[in-house]
Amino acid sequence: MPDIILPYKKDHETSYAPGAFATIELMRTRPRLLRKVYIRPSFIEKDSLMAECALLGIPALCGDEAFRRVRQKENEYVIGVFDKYEDRLDKIKPHVVLVSPMDMGNLGTIIRTIAGLNITDLAVISTAADLFHPKAVRASMGALFHINCALFDSFDAYRAAFPAHACYPFMLDGDALPAVLARERNPLFSLVFGNEARGLPPEYAAIGRAVRIPQSPLVDSLNLSVAAGIGAYAFAEKYGLIS
Amino acid sequence: MPDIILPYKKDHETSYAPGAFATIELMRTRPRLLRKVYIRPSFIEKDSLMAECALLGIPALCGDEAFRRVRQKENEYVIGVFDKYEDRLDKIKPHVVLVSPMDMGNLGTIIRTIAGLNITDLAVISTAADLFHPKAVRASMGALFHINCALFDSFDAYRAAFPAHACYPFMLDGDALPAVLARERNPLFSLVFGNEARGLPPEYAAIGRAVRIPQSPLVDSLNLSVAAGIGAYAFAEKYGLIS
Repeated sequence: MPDIILPYKKDHETSYAPGAFATIELMRTRPRLLRKVYIRPSFIEKDSLMAECALLGIPALCGDEAFRRVRQKENEYVIGVFDKYEDRLDKIKPHVVLVSPMDMGNLGTIIRTIAGLNITDLAVISTAADLFHPKAVRASMGALFHINCALFDSFDAYRAAFPAHACYPFMLDGDALPAVLARERNPLFSLVFGNEARGLPPEYAAIGRAVRIPQSPLVDSLNLSVAAGIGAYAFAEKYGLIS
Repeated sequence: MPDIILPYKKDHETSYAPGAFATIELMRTRPRLLRKVYIRPSFIEKDSLMAECALLGIPALCGDEAFRRVRQKENEYVIGVFDKYEDRLDKIKPHVVLVSPMDMGNLGTIIRTIAGLNITDLAVISTAADLFHPKAVRASMGALFHINCALFDSFDAYRAAFPAHACYPFMLDGDALPAVLARERNPLFSLVFGNEARGLPPEYAAIGRAVRIPQSPLVDSLNLSVAAGIGAYAFAEKYGLIS
């Protein structure tokens, strides 16, 4: 059977890091998970990438044939095959919690954002878009491999595992973000965001101090990735996670 | 010739508001631009929409036939045909300036975000993604119709039209956003963002005070929509545009 890259499936043990950038991020952060690297002969840095794979003992295959079933539109020069994994979140670091995010692009973009803001632990509450789908990996620009991500069956399961965190559910009827930040003094926080279509159900107001990003009446709500970016930035800045 | 919705083209005089939500936003903000509204018979609120169109004197057509060439995936129940238009930006209000944004989704998401933050004037510097493409309209959730958008051939042309605005180019080597906000006292600001792949060229540092969103070394940069959201939020909050 020829060695070709098959379409991704959620129930496979492996996924794909699409592109040279994501593959190199994976190679530098979690090299043991990389099963194989496929490289197109036209990839300009193929020699150095082949050499790096050889050094790490990662099989690398240079050739166009393996890319035969990859959609043209995706136009990748490099694809890394990796074992999916489970992380444990850090009990003494702040978290972001996404409740049922449905869009893989949002999931990846939020991972990229929080990694950029030094919030390196993400809980995803099922049901949710597939964290390991190549589209989510691509949108994360490889940042997925830099942070700890864990899936939970319910928010209660997350809460039971991390009872010490102060939860801040982002809700349209919460207290204004600047006022909340001015009052609070707890660097062990969990910022909780609902899904794209519905936000968080009303009962989430009871899990902690509900926060609202102040906004005009011109829109119903902000895009999920943007709201999570604004919320995470404001908390990261207040608690000195970035400078 | 049957009355059907043809694929959008950039050089047409008209574009489409995809979906009931965007069409209704358009109808409530710029009704004179609406040439016609197409409604699928399965649209649950078709009667009230038809009545609203009749009241405003906007032709409305209820039937599936017109949707024949609309891609299934887009799955819209309502499409509004509108005349493209040009706005003038307000000289005494803050602006966001996007230099050569290439992604229609980002363009629409940024429009939604700044409308939500009460920054209602957007300059787009060519070459850029098409502001009126239905994908951009869709990503804006109809917020496009609530704000003033204007195209400029160059940043210099924008600058010449609005010499009084204090420009803040967002650049990876600028001063940290919180430090800039703490020092500045100019509510007539222009927040300037570069394109997805390259950001702003170095010469933009000379147009004003360059601003950097503090970030970790785990990522190269933030997603454009997220960076614009964080920057616009921080300025809108400081100058009391939202509460």
